[in-house]
Amino acid sequence: MLIRYGVRVLTEKETKHEESVQTDNVVLIGRKPVMNYVTACITFFNSGEKHVIVKARGRAICKAVDTVELLRRAFVKDLEIKSINICTEELDRAEGGQSNISSIEIIASKAENNQSQEMK
Amino acid sequence: MLIRYGVRVLTEKETKHEESVQTDNVVLIGRKPVMNYVTACITFFNSGEKHVIVKARGRAICKAVDTVELLRRAFVKDLEIKSINICTEELDRAEGGQSNISSIEIIASKAENNQSQEMK
Repeated sequence: MLIRYGVRVLTEKETKHEESVQTDNVVLIGRKPVMNYVTACITFFNSGEKHVIVKARGRAICKAVDTVELLRRAFVKDLEIKSINICTEELDRAEGGQSNISSIEIIASKAENNQSQEMK
Repeated sequence: MLIRYGVRVLTEKETKHEESVQTDNVVLIGRKPVMNYVTACITFFNSGEKHVIVKARGRAICKAVDTVELLRRAFVKDLEIKSINICTEELDRAEGGQSNISSIEIIASKAENNQSQEMK
């Protein structure tokens, strides 16, 4: 599930990056209500995935944290946050020039009893 | 530097928590421009502090990430992010009832050459 942002142009590097992560269980946070993204995460876990990557940029960062916290608090009691990374992405603006935007990546995994967890 | 949010009542537990961290180098993100918080971090580092804790709640979370990223990108080249924690805080509302709010805590440290770094 990849939700793209409004109007913006992806750099070549970034496009490759997004393509490379599409095979993983990525929930990209956009403008929808938090519950939509929580549901997306639950769906991944229910389909047998061991971990989910929640990504967000700019103002959606707080929604990413909300998503993971709501998921942990209300739905997946044994949710474990494997790692949280922040970085800056450079975007080419449609009208020319570049802008820097902060982004966050939260990797959450569901601890399953009696099963070995293999995380990369 | 502690910047309090708008109207809210701190629970006893939370008040103790805030008191306990005031001795550390905490920059609590509020509604001011990002550069104010970046300046606060730089001031801590310039006064000889080895690490700074950037904290934020709710919608200010994205500003916390912006602060650390701007600091790393433009001001402190050797900034190292020691850890990022997210959690949920329960707040008592003034009008009764409780509300949950997500919060983030980013611990950043300045790597200094030829000096041993002692982090707790």
